[in-house]
Amino acid sequence: MNKLTNACGRILPTEISGYGRVTPYTTLFSDAPALTRTMPAKSIFRPGISKLRASIQEAIQSSNLQDGMTISFHHHLRGGDFVPALVMQEIAKLGIKNLRLAVSSFFTDKNETLLTYFKDGTISALETSGIRGMIGKEVSKHGFLSNPIIFRTHGGRARAIEYGQSNIDVAFISAPICDEMGNMSGRFGKNAFGAMGYPVADAHYAKTVIAITDNLVPYPLSGFISINQTLVDYVVVVDAIGDPNLIATGATAMTKNPNDLVLARRVTEVLIASGLVKEGFSFQAGAGGASLAVLSYLGEYMKEHGITGSFASGGITSQLVDALEAGLFKTLLDTQSFDAVAARSLAKNPANHLEMSASMYANPHNKGCVAHQLDMMMLGATEIDVNFNINSLTDSLGYIMGALGGAPDTAAGAKMTVAIAPSIRKRIPIIVESVTTICTPGESVDVVVTDRGVAVNPRRQDLKEKFLEAGIALKEIHQLKAEIEQLTGKPDRPQFSDRIVGIVEYRDGSVLDLIYQLKS
Amino acid sequence: MNKLTNACGRILPTEISGYGRVTPYTTLFSDAPALTRTMPAKSIFRPGISKLRASIQEAIQSSNLQDGMTISFHHHLRGGDFVPALVMQEIAKLGIKNLRLAVSSFFTDKNETLLTYFKDGTISALETSGIRGMIGKEVSKHGFLSNPIIFRTHGGRARAIEYGQSNIDVAFISAPICDEMGNMSGRFGKNAFGAMGYPVADAHYAKTVIAITDNLVPYPLSGFISINQTLVDYVVVVDAIGDPNLIATGATAMTKNPNDLVLARRVTEVLIASGLVKEGFSFQAGAGGASLAVLSYLGEYMKEHGITGSFASGGITSQLVDALEAGLFKTLLDTQSFDAVAARSLAKNPANHLEMSASMYANPHNKGCVAHQLDMMMLGATEIDVNFNINSLTDSLGYIMGALGGAPDTAAGAKMTVAIAPSIRKRIPIIVESVTTICTPGESVDVVVTDRGVAVNPRRQDLKEKFLEAGIALKEIHQLKAEIEQLTGKPDRPQFSDRIVGIVEYRDGSVLDLIYQLKS
Repeated sequence: MNKLTNACGRILPTEISGYGRVTPYTTLFSDAPALTRTMPAKSIFRPGISKLRASIQEAIQSSNLQDGMTISFHHHLRGGDFVPALVMQEIAKLGIKNLRLAVSSFFTDKNETLLTYFKDGTISALETSGIRGMIGKEVSKHGFLSNPIIFRTHGGRARAIEYGQSNIDVAFISAPICDEMGNMSGRFGKNAFGAMGYPVADAHYAKTVIAITDNLVPYPLSGFISINQTLVDYVVVVDAIGDPNLIATGATAMTKNPNDLVLARRVTEVLIASGLVKEGFSFQAGAGGASLAVLSYLGEYMKEHGITGSFASGGITSQLVDALEAGLFKTLLDTQSFDAVAARSLAKNPANHLEMSASMYANPHNKGCVAHQLDMMMLGATEIDVNFNINSLTDSLGYIMGALGGAPDTAAGAKMTVAIAPSIRKRIPIIVESVTTICTPGESVDVVVTDRGVAVNPRRQDLKEKFLEAGIALKEIHQLKAEIEQLTGKPDRPQFSDRIVGIVEYRDGSVLDLIYQLKS
Repeated sequence: MNKLTNACGRILPTEISGYGRVTPYTTLFSDAPALTRTMPAKSIFRPGISKLRASIQEAIQSSNLQDGMTISFHHHLRGGDFVPALVMQEIAKLGIKNLRLAVSSFFTDKNETLLTYFKDGTISALETSGIRGMIGKEVSKHGFLSNPIIFRTHGGRARAIEYGQSNIDVAFISAPICDEMGNMSGRFGKNAFGAMGYPVADAHYAKTVIAITDNLVPYPLSGFISINQTLVDYVVVVDAIGDPNLIATGATAMTKNPNDLVLARRVTEVLIASGLVKEGFSFQAGAGGASLAVLSYLGEYMKEHGITGSFASGGITSQLVDALEAGLFKTLLDTQSFDAVAARSLAKNPANHLEMSASMYANPHNKGCVAHQLDMMMLGATEIDVNFNINSLTDSLGYIMGALGGAPDTAAGAKMTVAIAPSIRKRIPIIVESVTTICTPGESVDVVVTDRGVAVNPRRQDLKEKFLEAGIALKEIHQLKAEIEQLTGKPDRPQFSDRIVGIVEYRDGSVLDLIYQLKS
């Protein structure tokens, strides 16, 4: 088999069975070939025809789902999602096999019931942003899927769907509120989850779109319509699309962990020293404890200096809603509301808490995504290497347990990207020679902040000078790694077989890295 | 040349020079061949690149506009629109010739300056919903365009753009409020026009999209975004995109004309007698005097009987906003706000005054448009014939002076379509043997209401029975025609040459009728 090496030094085959030809990753913004976006053939929908189907099974039958086709789900119902299990159960009953599952991501709890369908051949291929829980562990250990899993970023998924690299036959969209023509939104209903950014591409490009709701309202749906009737084929009413208690447990909690607070204080110093925290700046951070603490410290600084940010983006938390309502940011741009406060805010703050599709958020190949407008973004990591590559998908034992999310997208787009991680996690050093899996290429990571020091990517001498000027102590990343290893020792590396179980695509569709099955 | 006859009895050539193969109109909902929707190739937009261009000329140059390409405008700025003239002036200066102009429609005043560019060959082809003013007169008289004008309904235009029958190279979109990435809306700014339903298809499918604004605001635009940054290539700031006094002169005025009031009273009786005016019914009427009076009378009936309508659609007037705010209708679905009150209401009533694209409004070939959900719609006419065909495009002298608008779309979709017209206009009878130009096929017109009587389409025996039961006096359409002709005499018919100057497409792309140049 021919091999090639990508710009991160990863050796890749030129072709992978169950995937096709490999385009190696070259650089953050490469001149990809021009592809045309093709949407499915038109429908002729006469007046008086009903889209309502009496059951999920009837809707599946109407969609003419066949062996080998691709279906999709989105993960806005998070840990409380009933829909994939409800649908897969009916598909299995119909005896349909060998499906490709193209989900926006996977959450732990409810989706574990899907393991059965992976094992019995109902599902034989998977495209996702990440996998948490048992499915990831099982794939890493036993590699039971016949095709390697394709991991895509949130922006990369929208791009792949728009340009026909991910061809969805039937999209199942969970709708907390929906009318009989399929106008829907995530804003209202007992299972309201807020922004509905991920399935927008599915709705536009899937051949058949099935809305599944537990809250059918009279036509036309009032208030904001996230996905409209022109895109939906069938509507099914079920008792419950989810468990509201597991979608989001109130507000995301701020950390009280003293290590996180030290880390957050240091990150805030770095942000300020960069000179980017000024009137009209834009910001993205995750929902991790340290990120939320950064927002809190940064908010204090902004108030003190009378600075108003233009927007904060990505997954939106109650802390960002507080910041919006306190006037610290002018606008929130939301693909996924991380908690109940954020979900409610979309309806409460319609003028400045805006929903956006994953394509608007992060697709690198449209006419300009929000991620490319960011001044600064923060991301977490399971591992960081001396080339500033970030792993967020596999753990130190080599198991798949995380996600790409929007981090590679926003890291590429932001003027400054800061990776935040504790130096040691469960006695394992976080800074390594080479990460197990490259998820965000080091080319897009500017600063690494740990509790044992701050390292700046050598590409960013400009930032280095600013930080030194501000009195921030810096370390070379190799020095940081050595110091940490003096405490932990060199960790054992996981041992892999040569069977490819996962392919990590960069947001533009090139291949960043491969994930192999663990040696038994 | 081979000829064929369509279902309305019009004789058509099989092929028309400058147009191509003719698909004859067959019926309201024909099984058209499945066409794939193709959007232009992807763009690679790197962070830090500006979309701002210093002038319209620079934006045109950036778009690489060439001889023979297709450009588009939308008509939401109505009589106060500066943009087409500003753009055409620059195109002419650059010496670009032979363009195809694909506009959503034409209004009178400002667009007459475009006549020059039609005459000097800068523009050689036109696609539009209608033409008012001098351009129509000149085309009918002198046929100065080398290609026949294609007339499309609002829904038909969205369909033609989506399915690649109208391929726009460069779309110019007038934005009353816009940020530097091209997020825009019609809701705010000195030239706010309200809903922005027409250029949505242009924004999605044109190869290059240029936003022209007189109100650039910091990124990201707050409030509702009608067309977002993922679709826009360039942004140009000009002094003024329009004259607010000519966009909409306050509120549309209710008629005091006693004939109109009699007509409106009769229409209201017909609507009520149909049994369709009940809880949750939906409604569309134009902005003509009689239509507004119908809404007023109907509102009284609804209040009296405690009836709340579900939605009113189409162009939205201040009278419909009043009805919404009085709780008579639950929702307004708006492609174009007809007056300043309606334009302001979108921001004032965000939960139940919703903007929709022309495709969502009326495209027959998506997965279900709003037009197909209507219970009743009213339309005006310049002529009505004994087959219930409606003319709204040419006058009795044969001059092009009107538009198709959304009438053929909503007439097809509504459960009951009522044509309203005075029996005589300027001594000319309105009911004729055969309309000069078929715009809305009689198959979709159920009732004709004139000041000299009501006629029901023989296809609708069900309605006939209901009206008789309610004591409404009915006349056969031939009888109505004869009575009117007794007063007016048989009118002279305009004399046409055999040169085709216009093609009237039905909403599905088939050909309903042809417009010929007048004999000189």
